[in-house]
Amino acid sequence: MLQLLPAEPGMPVDEIDTPSLVVDLDAFEFNLDTMARLAAAAGVRVRPHAKTHKSPVVAHLQMARGAVGQCVQKIAEAEVLAWGGVTNILVSNEVVSPRKLARLAALTRICTVAVCADSSRGVALIETAAKDADVRITVLVEIDVGAGRCGVAPGWKAVALARQIVDSPHLNFGGLQAYHGAAQHQRTPEQRAASIAAAARLTARVVEDLKHLGIECSIVGGAGTGTFELEAASGVYNELQVGSYVFMDADYGRNKPALPFQNALFVRATVMSAPHAGLAVIDAGHKAVAVDSGLPLVWQRPGITYVGASDEHGNLALAADAVPLRIGEHVMLVPGHCDPTVDRYDWYVGVRNGRVERMWPVAGRGAMS
Amino acid sequence: MLQLLPAEPGMPVDEIDTPSLVVDLDAFEFNLDTMARLAAAAGVRVRPHAKTHKSPVVAHLQMARGAVGQCVQKIAEAEVLAWGGVTNILVSNEVVSPRKLARLAALTRICTVAVCADSSRGVALIETAAKDADVRITVLVEIDVGAGRCGVAPGWKAVALARQIVDSPHLNFGGLQAYHGAAQHQRTPEQRAASIAAAARLTARVVEDLKHLGIECSIVGGAGTGTFELEAASGVYNELQVGSYVFMDADYGRNKPALPFQNALFVRATVMSAPHAGLAVIDAGHKAVAVDSGLPLVWQRPGITYVGASDEHGNLALAADAVPLRIGEHVMLVPGHCDPTVDRYDWYVGVRNGRVERMWPVAGRGAMS
Repeated sequence: MLQLLPAEPGMPVDEIDTPSLVVDLDAFEFNLDTMARLAAAAGVRVRPHAKTHKSPVVAHLQMARGAVGQCVQKIAEAEVLAWGGVTNILVSNEVVSPRKLARLAALTRICTVAVCADSSRGVALIETAAKDADVRITVLVEIDVGAGRCGVAPGWKAVALARQIVDSPHLNFGGLQAYHGAAQHQRTPEQRAASIAAAARLTARVVEDLKHLGIECSIVGGAGTGTFELEAASGVYNELQVGSYVFMDADYGRNKPALPFQNALFVRATVMSAPHAGLAVIDAGHKAVAVDSGLPLVWQRPGITYVGASDEHGNLALAADAVPLRIGEHVMLVPGHCDPTVDRYDWYVGVRNGRVERMWPVAGRGAMS
Repeated sequence: MLQLLPAEPGMPVDEIDTPSLVVDLDAFEFNLDTMARLAAAAGVRVRPHAKTHKSPVVAHLQMARGAVGQCVQKIAEAEVLAWGGVTNILVSNEVVSPRKLARLAALTRICTVAVCADSSRGVALIETAAKDADVRITVLVEIDVGAGRCGVAPGWKAVALARQIVDSPHLNFGGLQAYHGAAQHQRTPEQRAASIAAAARLTARVVEDLKHLGIECSIVGGAGTGTFELEAASGVYNELQVGSYVFMDADYGRNKPALPFQNALFVRATVMSAPHAGLAVIDAGHKAVAVDSGLPLVWQRPGITYVGASDEHGNLALAADAVPLRIGEHVMLVPGHCDPTVDRYDWYVGVRNGRVERMWPVAGRGAMS
C-alpha cells in the first residue's frame, strides 16, 4: 500500500499529517557537505550506504558532492537505485540465491555493480549466474575484521577466495569488504580507535598478501558514521561506506565525543490523549519509529520523555516543570535508529523555514529481497 | 514500493524467495475456528483486531466464522478494510486531527464505523467533523482499566464524557472501550485473572452508572489474545478485540499455560554466510522481523538460536550438537511479535502440504495515518 501524502510543498509545517517522516533540509545539507569536506581532506572516496536513505534522490545529492557511488545490502535496493539513475553500486553483502543473482546479473546491463562473497560456494554461485547471463560480475571478498558477522577470516582463506574469483572466467576481483559494524556504536573514542586500528592491521595484511600474488584491490571498503575518520586516516581503506551521517539518530548521538553532524530526521507525531498531567499519548508507536536501538527522544521539549512504545501508541512522561502538551498538539521525535525508521515510510517531507519545501519518495522502502 | 512477489501458487515451499512472510494455512484455519468456537461457547461477540493482519481477506475469513466486524487503530486501516468490503469497523483508538476525522466521516457513507474518545476536546472535534460532513458518527468512551495508556478514569469523568456524546447532535453513543493491554503478556494465569477481574469491576460500575442515566452501552469492548477467556467469562464485556490469535508469536508463546492456538506465521530466511561451525548468518534482520518483543525463534531446528539482529542480518548460534546449516539453506523464524512483523511485508504466502496454495496482499501495510 502506498501511504497517503502527508503534506504538500508550500504547506506550513504545522499542517503536516502524522505520523510522518520529516527532514530538516538545512541540517541534511549541512551533513552532506560536512562528509564531503572531511573525506576530501582525508583523500578517500565516499560510497554512502543507501540502506539508510533508500532513495535515488538522496543518492544523487551525495554524488553531486563527490561520492563515487552507493552501497546497498539487498538486490532489491540495488534495483531501486539503478532504476533511479545511479550507475555505480556495491552490494556490501553476500547474495547466494540463484534468483537474486540472476537479477544482479541483469543489473550489469545498465550500471556498474559489485557484490561480496565470503565462501567458495558463494563465489561459485555468482560465477554460475554470470555465466548463465553471459555477463561479468565484480566480486569483493568480505573479511571479518572484528564484527563477528559475515566475512571470511583475514588470512589465507581470504587470499584463497580472492584467487578463486580471479580464476573464475565470468568474475572480476573487486577488492575487500572490511566493515567493522560492532565498532560504530562503541561509546568512547579509545574503544573505537582500538577496534579500527585492529581492523586496519588485519585488512592491510590481506591487501599486502594479495599484492605479492599480483592481485590488486581496487576497493578496500568499510567504515560507518561512528568510525569513518579512523578508516579515512588509516592509509588502508580507500572507500567509506557511511550511511547514517545524512540523518543522524539518537543512538549515534550517544557516541562521545559528539559526531560533527546534525539531527536532520524526525518523526512528527500528534498528541491524541492526555489522561493526566504526567502523561501524553502520541500517535507514533514502534510501527512508526524504530526502537531496536532505544526509544526516540522528544525534540526540544525539556522535561518530556518518550517512555513506552506500543504498536500504535507512544507514551510521553511529563516532568512536573515541563510545559504541558495539549490534545492535538504536535511533537517531533528523534528516532533511536534512522535506517529502520526510514524503512517504515513512503515519503520524506523536506522542510525549511517553517514550510514544506519538497517531498520525495522512500523508493526502496521494504526492499528486502 | 511494492515488494516483488516472493512466490506463486503451486510452487514448492522450497522455492519461496526470502525474506518472506509465510502463513501455515492449516494452523491459521485452526486458529480461526478455535476462536470462533470458544467465543460462541461463551456467548460473546468477536470483533478481531485488524492491526494484526491488515488484510480484508483475513477479515472476511474471520467474519465468515461469525465475527461481527473488525477493530483498527488508524483511519488508514479503516479505509483499507472498508475499501475491501468490510462493513462494520471500530477504530479502537482516539482520533483528534480534523483531516483524519473528515476521512472517518467520509467512511460512514459506505460502512458502519465507530471511534473512541477519552477527552471532552476529542468529543468536540468529532462532533465538528460529523457536522461539517453532515453525517452521524458513533463514539465510544475509552476508559483506563489498568493499562495506563489512553482512556479516561472509569468514574464520573467517563459518565460525563458519555453524557457529552449523547448530547452532541451529530454523535451516537456506542459504549465503552475497556482494553487492558498491559495484562495480555502477564506470564501467569493468576496475574492475568487479577488484572481482568479489576478491569471488569471498573467497567461494570461505569456500565451501571450509565444505565441509571438511561444510557445503554451497545458495545463493551476489550480483551486480547492473552486474556480473552477472562473477559468472555466476565459477564461485563460483550465484544472481544482479539488480534494475534490468528498467527501467534514467540512472545505470546511465553504465556503460561499455553494458549490454545498454533504458530501460523513465519518469516522464511536464507543462510547467506556460515563463517564458522558455531555461526550462520541469515538474510532476515530487524527490518524483516520485528524485535520489539524479543528475538525470533528458529522453528524446528534444535540447538539453533537467533542471537542477534542487525538491519539486514540475523545471527544464528549453533550448539555443538545442532545439525549444521549450509549456505543457501532456508530456515523458518517464529517472529517475536506478529503485528509489526506483518507490517513489514506486502505479501502473505499461504502454504499447505509443502506447496504455496495462495497469496494475498498485506493491503494495510504501513497504514499509519
